[in-house]
Amino acid sequence: MLYLIGLGLGDVRDITVKGLEIVRRCSKVYLESYTSVLSVGQAQLEEFYGKQLILADRELVEQGCAAVLEAAKEEDVAFLVVGDPLGATTHSDLMLRAHEKGVETRVIHNASILTAVGCSGLQLYSFGETVSIVMWTETWRPHSYYDKIAANRQRGLHTLCLLDIKVKEKSIENLIKGREIYEPPRFMTAAEAASQLIEILELKRAEGVPVSEMAYREDSPCIGLARVGMETQCIKCCSLKEMSTCDLGSPLHSLVIPGNLHPMEIEMLRLFATNRTWFDDVCKAP
Amino acid sequence: MLYLIGLGLGDVRDITVKGLEIVRRCSKVYLESYTSVLSVGQAQLEEFYGKQLILADRELVEQGCAAVLEAAKEEDVAFLVVGDPLGATTHSDLMLRAHEKGVETRVIHNASILTAVGCSGLQLYSFGETVSIVMWTETWRPHSYYDKIAANRQRGLHTLCLLDIKVKEKSIENLIKGREIYEPPRFMTAAEAASQLIEILELKRAEGVPVSEMAYREDSPCIGLARVGMETQCIKCCSLKEMSTCDLGSPLHSLVIPGNLHPMEIEMLRLFATNRTWFDDVCKAP
Repeated sequence: MLYLIGLGLGDVRDITVKGLEIVRRCSKVYLESYTSVLSVGQAQLEEFYGKQLILADRELVEQGCAAVLEAAKEEDVAFLVVGDPLGATTHSDLMLRAHEKGVETRVIHNASILTAVGCSGLQLYSFGETVSIVMWTETWRPHSYYDKIAANRQRGLHTLCLLDIKVKEKSIENLIKGREIYEPPRFMTAAEAASQLIEILELKRAEGVPVSEMAYREDSPCIGLARVGMETQCIKCCSLKEMSTCDLGSPLHSLVIPGNLHPMEIEMLRLFATNRTWFDDVCKAP
Repeated sequence: MLYLIGLGLGDVRDITVKGLEIVRRCSKVYLESYTSVLSVGQAQLEEFYGKQLILADRELVEQGCAAVLEAAKEEDVAFLVVGDPLGATTHSDLMLRAHEKGVETRVIHNASILTAVGCSGLQLYSFGETVSIVMWTETWRPHSYYDKIAANRQRGLHTLCLLDIKVKEKSIENLIKGREIYEPPRFMTAAEAASQLIEILELKRAEGVPVSEMAYREDSPCIGLARVGMETQCIKCCSLKEMSTCDLGSPLHSLVIPGNLHPMEIEMLRLFATNRTWFDDVCKAP
């Protein structure tokens, strides 16, 4: 049996009681280590579980987890994923491959940023499509998420922006030379995401899009969230412009572009506003 | 301190380790009992926690949980919610009221149907706005969720339909006569939801909406989910027409109206298709 077990968002104790029981009785335990991170490292997880963990990096997972599935044919294997196990496409793929090989699977769900974002005070029912904001390079500056934010806003819906994570990536040089040298992990900050969103406005301006038709403006409100679900969780509501220079501390960060706000949402967001006078003015504006 | 603790979706062991530790050390533990249900009853929860639970019904919660907040001023109080604590508006309201009264709050997140729906094989990033389908009465037949499904479909997005729950409701007669008599709990089934969606098509037809412009048709695919996260979880993919006579067993049920399907989503959904020939035809259709 292959168990896909969600670890939730914070530390070792955010696994469910059921998940922990299963981990402790599995003969092999893999830890998916590249789509998200916890606030604690492998050593702390191993100590808490009383189990050695096998790191499952991008290569292992994208190559179909052959070793994982082979083991799961004979014994109980756990595959641990930060957040909910079905948040990312790769894990659906793992379930499909398991099915093809006749390996039974079971999912132990857990909290995910997709619902924990409710801590901002925004109603989960009022979110539209979630977008992913990727780190730009000098030559690769995709911004198709702008259109999704625009489509959500047009319907009055909020947009949760998940921010890019680069773990165990090789530099182009090392990739070309075939060297097994990895770059240090990088996590996009809410400030970087806000800057990128503002840069897209420049592009739109250059394309001749009138300001009134833009999905947001530099002074539109946004909500930056850091370390959601942890004791050090930090939520700030300010303009995109201000967010672009805001330090929310260590990862992971997310950013929300709100749509229409319900009075109760306004009341909650106000608690996180860096400037309440500004916030009240924004909420009064038509 | 007031802890809002998510219980997840299944049974007593779906609480997180952190959540359980907090419940066990709180002096008062409330159980929110009307927006969702677990597969286990109060007695089983009490036995597992080693604590007596105080039931928080709609009246208590909507009257502002004065007793809960009063207690939380002096001692550690836990407020347990099935799923994630911030899935429903009422719990944001509780946090706001706590803030007004100077009561500190902390949220222990957990799985919610909003992310666990990933077990259908549909990608969470491809869901649009979530809708709630309410049980119709003879005189009250709202269907504004039709427009939301239409707007999601237009953008190629899936729609998760949450189905109505009636717990501790009074009949109109008992309400008028002021009697404290409650109706037995009722949970809308995927079949009932599918029938209602089909009835809306009749209304649209009567309004003169051409078939080609409708958000879905009787033979559109849908996914019925029952008891997500539990051992008895059941997922079926068939036409709305077939779903309207499909028995998925005991509650809770949800229904998904898919948008555009990615090849991997098709591969996963196929596992749940009641009729694979039909399913392959539907996926081939333009």
